[in-house]
Amino acid sequence: MSLDKILKAKSVAIVGASKNETKRGYQAIRTLIDERFEGVIYPVNPKEESILGYKCYARVADIEGPVDMALITTPARSLLTVLRDCGKKGVSGAVIIAGGFGETGVDGRELEQKVVEVAQKNDIRLIGPNTSGMMNLKDHLNLVGLRQAPEGNIALLSQSGNMALTLITEAKLKSQKGFSYYVGVGNEADLRFHEYLEFFRKDKDTRAILMYVEGMRDGRKFLQQAYKTTLEKPVILLKSGRSSIGKRSAGSHTGALAGISEVARTAFKRAGIVVIKRSDQLFPAAETLSSLPPMKNNQVAILADGGGHATIAADMLTDLGVTMPELSEKTQAKLKKILPAAAAVRNPVDVAGGTDADPTVFADCADILLKDPHVGGLLLVGLFGGYGIRFAESLALMEEDAAHQMGKMVVKRDKPIVVHSLYSSERPHALHLLRYYNIPVYDSLDIACKCMGVLSEYGTFLRSYHAKANFVFNWRSKARAEGAAIIKKALEEGRNVLLEPEAKKLMQLHGAAKGGDVLVKSADEAVEAATRIGRSVVLKIVSPDILHKSDAGGVRLNLATAGEIRESFEDIMNSAIRYNPDADIRGVLVSPMAEKGLEVIIGTKIDDQFGPVIMFGLGGIMVEILKDVAFRVLPISERSARKMMEDIKSYKILEGIRGEKSYDRKALKNLLLMVSEVIESYPEIEEMDLNPVLVYQKGLALVDARIILNPERKQPKW
Amino acid sequence: MSLDKILKAKSVAIVGASKNETKRGYQAIRTLIDERFEGVIYPVNPKEESILGYKCYARVADIEGPVDMALITTPARSLLTVLRDCGKKGVSGAVIIAGGFGETGVDGRELEQKVVEVAQKNDIRLIGPNTSGMMNLKDHLNLVGLRQAPEGNIALLSQSGNMALTLITEAKLKSQKGFSYYVGVGNEADLRFHEYLEFFRKDKDTRAILMYVEGMRDGRKFLQQAYKTTLEKPVILLKSGRSSIGKRSAGSHTGALAGISEVARTAFKRAGIVVIKRSDQLFPAAETLSSLPPMKNNQVAILADGGGHATIAADMLTDLGVTMPELSEKTQAKLKKILPAAAAVRNPVDVAGGTDADPTVFADCADILLKDPHVGGLLLVGLFGGYGIRFAESLALMEEDAAHQMGKMVVKRDKPIVVHSLYSSERPHALHLLRYYNIPVYDSLDIACKCMGVLSEYGTFLRSYHAKANFVFNWRSKARAEGAAIIKKALEEGRNVLLEPEAKKLMQLHGAAKGGDVLVKSADEAVEAATRIGRSVVLKIVSPDILHKSDAGGVRLNLATAGEIRESFEDIMNSAIRYNPDADIRGVLVSPMAEKGLEVIIGTKIDDQFGPVIMFGLGGIMVEILKDVAFRVLPISERSARKMMEDIKSYKILEGIRGEKSYDRKALKNLLLMVSEVIESYPEIEEMDLNPVLVYQKGLALVDARIILNPERKQPKW
Repeated sequence: MSLDKILKAKSVAIVGASKNETKRGYQAIRTLIDERFEGVIYPVNPKEESILGYKCYARVADIEGPVDMALITTPARSLLTVLRDCGKKGVSGAVIIAGGFGETGVDGRELEQKVVEVAQKNDIRLIGPNTSGMMNLKDHLNLVGLRQAPEGNIALLSQSGNMALTLITEAKLKSQKGFSYYVGVGNEADLRFHEYLEFFRKDKDTRAILMYVEGMRDGRKFLQQAYKTTLEKPVILLKSGRSSIGKRSAGSHTGALAGISEVARTAFKRAGIVVIKRSDQLFPAAETLSSLPPMKNNQVAILADGGGHATIAADMLTDLGVTMPELSEKTQAKLKKILPAAAAVRNPVDVAGGTDADPTVFADCADILLKDPHVGGLLLVGLFGGYGIRFAESLALMEEDAAHQMGKMVVKRDKPIVVHSLYSSERPHALHLLRYYNIPVYDSLDIACKCMGVLSEYGTFLRSYHAKANFVFNWRSKARAEGAAIIKKALEEGRNVLLEPEAKKLMQLHGAAKGGDVLVKSADEAVEAATRIGRSVVLKIVSPDILHKSDAGGVRLNLATAGEIRESFEDIMNSAIRYNPDADIRGVLVSPMAEKGLEVIIGTKIDDQFGPVIMFGLGGIMVEILKDVAFRVLPISERSARKMMEDIKSYKILEGIRGEKSYDRKALKNLLLMVSEVIESYPEIEEMDLNPVLVYQKGLALVDARIILNPERKQPKW
Repeated sequence: MSLDKILKAKSVAIVGASKNETKRGYQAIRTLIDERFEGVIYPVNPKEESILGYKCYARVADIEGPVDMALITTPARSLLTVLRDCGKKGVSGAVIIAGGFGETGVDGRELEQKVVEVAQKNDIRLIGPNTSGMMNLKDHLNLVGLRQAPEGNIALLSQSGNMALTLITEAKLKSQKGFSYYVGVGNEADLRFHEYLEFFRKDKDTRAILMYVEGMRDGRKFLQQAYKTTLEKPVILLKSGRSSIGKRSAGSHTGALAGISEVARTAFKRAGIVVIKRSDQLFPAAETLSSLPPMKNNQVAILADGGGHATIAADMLTDLGVTMPELSEKTQAKLKKILPAAAAVRNPVDVAGGTDADPTVFADCADILLKDPHVGGLLLVGLFGGYGIRFAESLALMEEDAAHQMGKMVVKRDKPIVVHSLYSSERPHALHLLRYYNIPVYDSLDIACKCMGVLSEYGTFLRSYHAKANFVFNWRSKARAEGAAIIKKALEEGRNVLLEPEAKKLMQLHGAAKGGDVLVKSADEAVEAATRIGRSVVLKIVSPDILHKSDAGGVRLNLATAGEIRESFEDIMNSAIRYNPDADIRGVLVSPMAEKGLEVIIGTKIDDQFGPVIMFGLGGIMVEILKDVAFRVLPISERSARKMMEDIKSYKILEGIRGEKSYDRKALKNLLLMVSEVIESYPEIEEMDLNPVLVYQKGLALVDARIILNPERKQPKW
């Protein structure tokens, strides 16, 4: 369903309309009038005849004309009645302001569920509950009560009314940009982040999407939608609730689920979302990305009128992964011609007083720098805009001239300029002009650098995207049918765990090499199996009731002789029975003793918000002590599998250190893709653990595999 | 020498005084007049009779009265003459504005050296060169040309004129704080950071010291001074030039040396300096620390009028190492009494509308929170200050009432309050009042959190300081005399390297356990030594000409039998001669084969800015691949030695993982202290490498030791 009837509603019922000026039901109508909403307003309140000159209706169903949307300002307990009433009238959507739902605990969650059910039955989509409202600034459909928010082309999705207020205030006071829409997402009871995202992707008035998120009900669908959206429009996002106290706070605020923030961060970035950590960089990043061309390469020139700012900017940009190439000799020569001898022209460029008498020299320098094909963008830092204030008024006019020139340069060269000016808060006209030409100006050097950083990040994403979304599945119906049978059998036996041989078989169906394991029932069979294997073997107990085999004395390594094997078989069986007399023992697995190799751990689990996720790391200390692991939301593409390996700090060990040969990263990449395919094929898999996998110079061995099932789970297909 | 005559000069000569309004020599006088300097001004220019009504002198020596200080605005080439002239007059100090010295390359460095020599000969201390000048705001001694800088009690030391301008502008526009002094440190040719620091430590008008640093000529003396200073006054510092481009930029700006920034960061922190990374947090941190009591514990309460800000603040504070304890039941009960049912009272506290009708409730909450003994400080986030703007004017008066109450609370409870208000830039009176009471207010939530963070950090430093400066040296004159003799012998032989037995001997003199090594000259002696050792041995070539013993085939491990030992001895000698026929071979070292243990690496070197520094890490992958190392400036205290071990991520391995016993951290700590003592004892040591050291459950073994000498080096005693 399109959200047009809701976000572009032409007629709005205000349920809980009031004559009391302190009430939301009064303010909503007053705001719509003041902000000049051109649609129709219907106050609804059984106790009033009219409000602010509008006829007042007892119930929504009484309204004569069509009603697209209802703003419901009445308390939680009244909602079910109101929604049924709206249903009768054929209202398409409702904004529910009231709190007291999912964010308050179990009772609230139940009520929320009930509200959604009634809404669905009545074909009504809900914004909220627990929201400050929504605004469509173009149509002056303002259901928030915040007036004179600046109109523009940034769509704002926020789970906090105060953060929305913060961002809107910032836009108004510090930029010339504004918003196409604001939606207070609230508890996401019905309408979810991904649905708004799709609306904004298509909306022609929206050029960038700015999001404040505490938690997501359906991170997986959001990611799918983000993949589509970020190719067309930048999405800028801050997710709070990273820390434990932050999660507690988010929980009591929007009832948001605690998320694995490392997963979220990587997943968002992978989908092309610009993830912001500092709240004071959030609006600037959106301002910049909504109005400037992303960088075509990663290389920035810094133009400064003082060494200190240049040095700090160089540090900051380096931290952000932006490079500052030494300028070409040709470019340096051109700069030298117009700057004093003391100027630094390698990059950063320090004009060394060369602009003191004539600030248009800034524009000349900018022109030279942007013409250099190696320069992808320009960061101007220092006093620009303040020459007129600080030195002589006549210089202000030259600054304005320079601003006009630089503004046109951005369009002509299709390269961004970002400006830091310490005079920004004094609002000189030259800076106003820069902003008019879409060049953002900040008084924080750090924020200016960050904006340059996001232009580089988003540009890099757009250039590298082509390779990202190719998920390589080798679906073979036979594999899936056989695999499904293995799982079915386990579930039918009432097990929520696959036996080691079953788990390994499942992996083999999807391409893993056979390991030569044999399941045996007696010591004789064990000896026979070992003879066929033809080298030292490992014996492991196989029982659905014994998950931690070593703890149960169920593992014996490196057995060579028939005597050792017989003795170990008996030991294992005895230990298992001692460990759990009721254990259902299926036999003993005889496997070839794996050669020494590099230990790797691969695991998957189901994240509350993002569905299946995969973890990868090197075994032992690297994972246990140093937590050197990489996460991805599944499924993963070939590129992601590779990137995932490269993401861990100990990747260099895989590459081979101290002249050693490298380990078989291709085999490892294929294994990661296999895991992705398996998880995607069988929604019943709740958790998988390949621990350890031994990687060799050539090939690898799955030493152990564990799969936990959950028959209830249904996962949405990617 | 006291800097009083310079920084509190009562009489100033302006050398290069001018009637041309665009010249620095005019502006300087104009500024002194406008800013009402109460001392005496002497223009110096041979071509003028008078300037701005002041009698003009041809030379400084011509001036009748005493002259404390000269501001020299003439170019670099004129300096030597001017300084000699100043010398004749008995001038105490000079500010040298001109650039063209150390920052421009070799010729500039030479000229700079020459200038310093002439100044020293004439008893003149120099500020600069390559500086924007200095200001003493109390005495209105303004030699910068920047007018109406706000006066206050923050002393500003900056190596960038633009950064000084940035900080002063920020103070003026966004705070009610100001500066006692500004010194543009420039190239530090003569007067250095630590000398200014000592002046400000004693200065009664200065309560905090704010520094922007690109590089330091004498980081070691600065650190020594910082240890003294930070106990009395907070020092807040941003060091740029961390990245390679940043270093290039700093080099061309102030000729600053590239520093090991990791060393600098740890060293500064250890000395109690508050190190800031983001330039937009620099002034706020100083503002906060100059006016609020540091926190007595690490525990903050967040008070918010919206969940979003509270959640973000909780994340930020967690990142900064600040904790947010759940409030006591008593405190929660008190809050519940005055807040609506929907309010969150565990911490963060969200008033949930409880302040909408009466913002004085903020003060009531603050009072309850600050009374809680577990709460060390309060962070108020959200709309405070904006109730009057956003809702009703009458609320503004209540906000003012709340501001008065909270201001008094800070004094009464001796606990800090920091405020985030998104209405800060609209300058409501309530926020003005808060600042009057020394409560800082920021419109960036991130900056407000950072300020809370620095109050916690500085408080923690002050509480934990007592243990820090106790350097434990077991100076024994005998050890030092014997050690010095070893070094002397090597140097006399023309060697800049100690042989392995010499290096180990040196360590033993300072307390290291004897390893049982024997230096032998023949295979027979080797066998005999091994017999005495009584277990497997290692043979290693000993030659000042063979540093990399393994490369020269000079090492044989794990030799048990007499035959093996004989054969290996011959092999080693032959290989050594093949490797370097001219090598001066002193024999072969027979050592007991070390038992397996945990490999550790300890190294020292001389940092350009900080003198001797020590590095510590676990051997192998941890150092080589993961760069998991800790640095300290030497000497180190017992606490530092311990902290240094704890600083590495792989510390948990030392503690013992997976039920293993822990390694002997006490022995390791003592070894670090020994190294510290050795380096402190023998200034000729340029580099030391203990690689590997094997650590055991009990004790450790120095398997190899290498010491490089530099007879030229003289190190200042700590």
